Amino acid sequence: MADDYSKVLLDESEMPTQWYNVIPDLPEPPPPPLHPGTHEPIGPDDLAPLFPMALIMQEVSTDSYIDIPGEVLDIYRLWRPTPLLRARRLEKALDTPARIFLKYEGGSPAGSHKPNTAVPQAFYNSQEGVTRLTTETGAGQWGSALAFATAQYGIECEVWQVRASYDQKPYRKTMMEIWGATVHPSPSNLTEAGRAVLAADPDSPGSLGIAISEAVEQAAPREDTRYALGSVLNHVLLHQTIIGEEALLQLAKVDETPDLLVGCTGGGSNFGGLSFPFLREKLAGRMNPTIRCVEPASCPSLTRGEYRYDFGDTGQLTPLVKMHTLGHTFVPDPIHAGGLRYHGMSPLISHIYELGLIEAESIHQTECFAAGLQFARSEGIVPAPEPTHAIAATIREALRCRESGEEKVILTALCGHGHLDLASYEQYLAGELVDYDYPEEKIAAAMAQVPVLS
Amino acid sequence: MADDYSKVLLDESEMPTQWYNVIPDLPEPPPPPLHPGTHEPIGPDDLAPLFPMALIMQEVSTDSYIDIPGEVLDIYRLWRPTPLLRARRLEKALDTPARIFLKYEGGSPAGSHKPNTAVPQAFYNSQEGVTRLTTETGAGQWGSALAFATAQYGIECEVWQVRASYDQKPYRKTMMEIWGATVHPSPSNLTEAGRAVLAADPDSPGSLGIAISEAVEQAAPREDTRYALGSVLNHVLLHQTIIGEEALLQLAKVDETPDLLVGCTGGGSNFGGLSFPFLREKLAGRMNPTIRCVEPASCPSLTRGEYRYDFGDTGQLTPLVKMHTLGHTFVPDPIHAGGLRYHGMSPLISHIYELGLIEAESIHQTECFAAGLQFARSEGIVPAPEPTHAIAATIREALRCRESGEEKVILTALCGHGHLDLASYEQYLAGELVDYDYPEEKIAAAMAQVPVLS
Repeated sequence: MADDYSKVLLDESEMPTQWYNVIPDLPEPPPPPLHPGTHEPIGPDDLAPLFPMALIMQEVSTDSYIDIPGEVLDIYRLWRPTPLLRARRLEKALDTPARIFLKYEGGSPAGSHKPNTAVPQAFYNSQEGVTRLTTETGAGQWGSALAFATAQYGIECEVWQVRASYDQKPYRKTMMEIWGATVHPSPSNLTEAGRAVLAADPDSPGSLGIAISEAVEQAAPREDTRYALGSVLNHVLLHQTIIGEEALLQLAKVDETPDLLVGCTGGGSNFGGLSFPFLREKLAGRMNPTIRCVEPASCPSLTRGEYRYDFGDTGQLTPLVKMHTLGHTFVPDPIHAGGLRYHGMSPLISHIYELGLIEAESIHQTECFAAGLQFARSEGIVPAPEPTHAIAATIREALRCRESGEEKVILTALCGHGHLDLASYEQYLAGELVDYDYPEEKIAAAMAQVPVLS
Repeated sequence: MADDYSKVLLDESEMPTQWYNVIPDLPEPPPPPLHPGTHEPIGPDDLAPLFPMALIMQEVSTDSYIDIPGEVLDIYRLWRPTPLLRARRLEKALDTPARIFLKYEGGSPAGSHKPNTAVPQAFYNSQEGVTRLTTETGAGQWGSALAFATAQYGIECEVWQVRASYDQKPYRKTMMEIWGATVHPSPSNLTEAGRAVLAADPDSPGSLGIAISEAVEQAAPREDTRYALGSVLNHVLLHQTIIGEEALLQLAKVDETPDLLVGCTGGGSNFGGLSFPFLREKLAGRMNPTIRCVEPASCPSLTRGEYRYDFGDTGQLTPLVKMHTLGHTFVPDPIHAGGLRYHGMSPLISHIYELGLIEAESIHQTECFAAGLQFARSEGIVPAPEPTHAIAATIREALRCRESGEEKVILTALCGHGHLDLASYEQYLAGELVDYDYPEEKIAAAMAQVPVLS
């Protein structure tokens, strides 16, 4: 391959056909989820009202590799393999000797990495006779991914979208409707959970926690309906590993080995998807990259949270999972990276962080938007607010390399485009975007609500 | 290559390095543009206040191929070569034996094919010392493409955006500003043309014709400033031929020869870019595809216009060009495919149409949106309103093939995504989108204003 390439492509025939499960390769397994009532480890049957058995088996699998079904590969091929970009113009603008690579997932129909798991989730549900899926969505990335995926298998899709986002971002709703989904503002009067909230506050702007409760309530009792989650869980991260597996092949094509991996973390699926295959290589001694999470300063679960058993949702409907948490009642400040506004972190990533295999930093949003703007002006693509965190951390490192002269190879994930987030850039350009203080007091208050296990 | 591919990719090393000029291969050359005062053919010097000499030379070139400068190829590689998609899931949904291919240009930074010409236009201007470019934009596709391109060469960019669109589609403006452009609503009080309109009507919603006048007025007198146009002209169509050249290589990779090419036409640059390399093959007897333009029923320049000398703009500032026109004062009904709302047609495409080498049909917008929705649900990508015309015509043909049993190979251009056009889908989904009658009376009135040449 010539040395002046701008991107590294894979042919469809080179697309990986297995997902990678990092758990068997870890020095110790992650702690189990616990039943919220008994505090005993939960089993597959406890999850059966919510998920199809194939996904539950993936959630607890100890196999290192799981075959991607042909019916899923067929849909993946609509946009996969995705390109690995070399950010030569950004490198030049930064005058850095670092070599910057970005795995770009924004070319998917929904515009982010989310369809990587939405498609197999819809597939396995359809295989087990499920005809309706419910989910929640905040900013709308996950809801649109699931709407696209369910359209491929003829499954109905009902999305509870946080009211504030439903009102402020009507175009995400339209996108979901284009793919045939039904979208409800949450809280809605369709569920007990929603009606209870509306009775107390008819003008409630909603929250992800409330929306989860509504979607779960609609799924659990009906035999034809299941629930789908877009991040956090093991099987979701598993599906996302196709990102890292492709990136490994692409870097090998240009004879590069990463010195640093950087990924933004909300629930952790984009970060896990990019980094786990490289972590495998690191654990096997075949390469030794630093692997770094970047989270928003307003929602710093890894850098400021505690590693404790806590609920995944505000409504306390989920099992207790051991993770870095700011407390399940923590409500992050209204930063624009809606996909990173989650009080907890994937239990699997939390565990790996505790093992000392990865590190984390947090960044304020104005630095992230400045990085996004510099990226757009040099490389063309307008990034979504979430990956601007990864880009900001990448720029920090590239500037350190300018000082030190190190020719580091940096790999990051550009997990989505910002075409439906332009209002946030407008605010940034108008100088109206603010940074919030680190939410120490709010964290302390929310942590006081976390259950204490005997 | 396996037979179950979903898309055909080219490596960067396979990207064409020359644009194709169809003019020398035509049985006769197109009629020259005329000076609006003297009605004599204009020469290069007449255009020098508006365009750099390199582009003027391309406008009148009789060379069959023109090398793409390395500095332009460098930027093209940010998103090119673009994928050729095989619409297998749409074929299945239509139960058609036709094989449908789409050349997808929506992966460019601006989301359409427009950067293919914006980049070389910015480059040649920068080579000749131009430090500022002005242009107009309606829906905003062209303005954002030029904003992206000028950011790559450090040129200032000023865009006059039609007021109605400026107010209704703030996100396109934001996109232009992200790339550093300055955007004015048109009519503005920055130009004589704008002030005259505002004096007569302070609430004027503007028009493309007015915006062109403002951009031209700002460019012509200043040595450091030139004007850029996003369609219609020969050099613009020339730059777009990289679309068709790539598609030729990609179809050859899967051993396919098109029976039908379909492209939507507004000013003609997307259609010309896709079809001219195939027209070369047709003229040389190497293949024999039918080549079909699709235009909106509300702006049917080829199917209902006259082939006459007319002005390119409402304000009568441009040369007279021989083209299919509805009259330069014709204002199309407010359909959502803003990029197709032009009263005329590229003189080069008009000439080729008169030669009988291509054909044309027109389609109403609700049929187009229905086609766009069917496409999004089967193939994932949400198309911009403009290419839904090409998709609707493709579906018409595929359904004819279902009746006849013909295994036609259909090639079309998916020239942009619809992420910034979701409001129009929302209207369609709500059943609020209307079709307009064929504008016979409006055409007759506007044609009465077309100058009669002696």
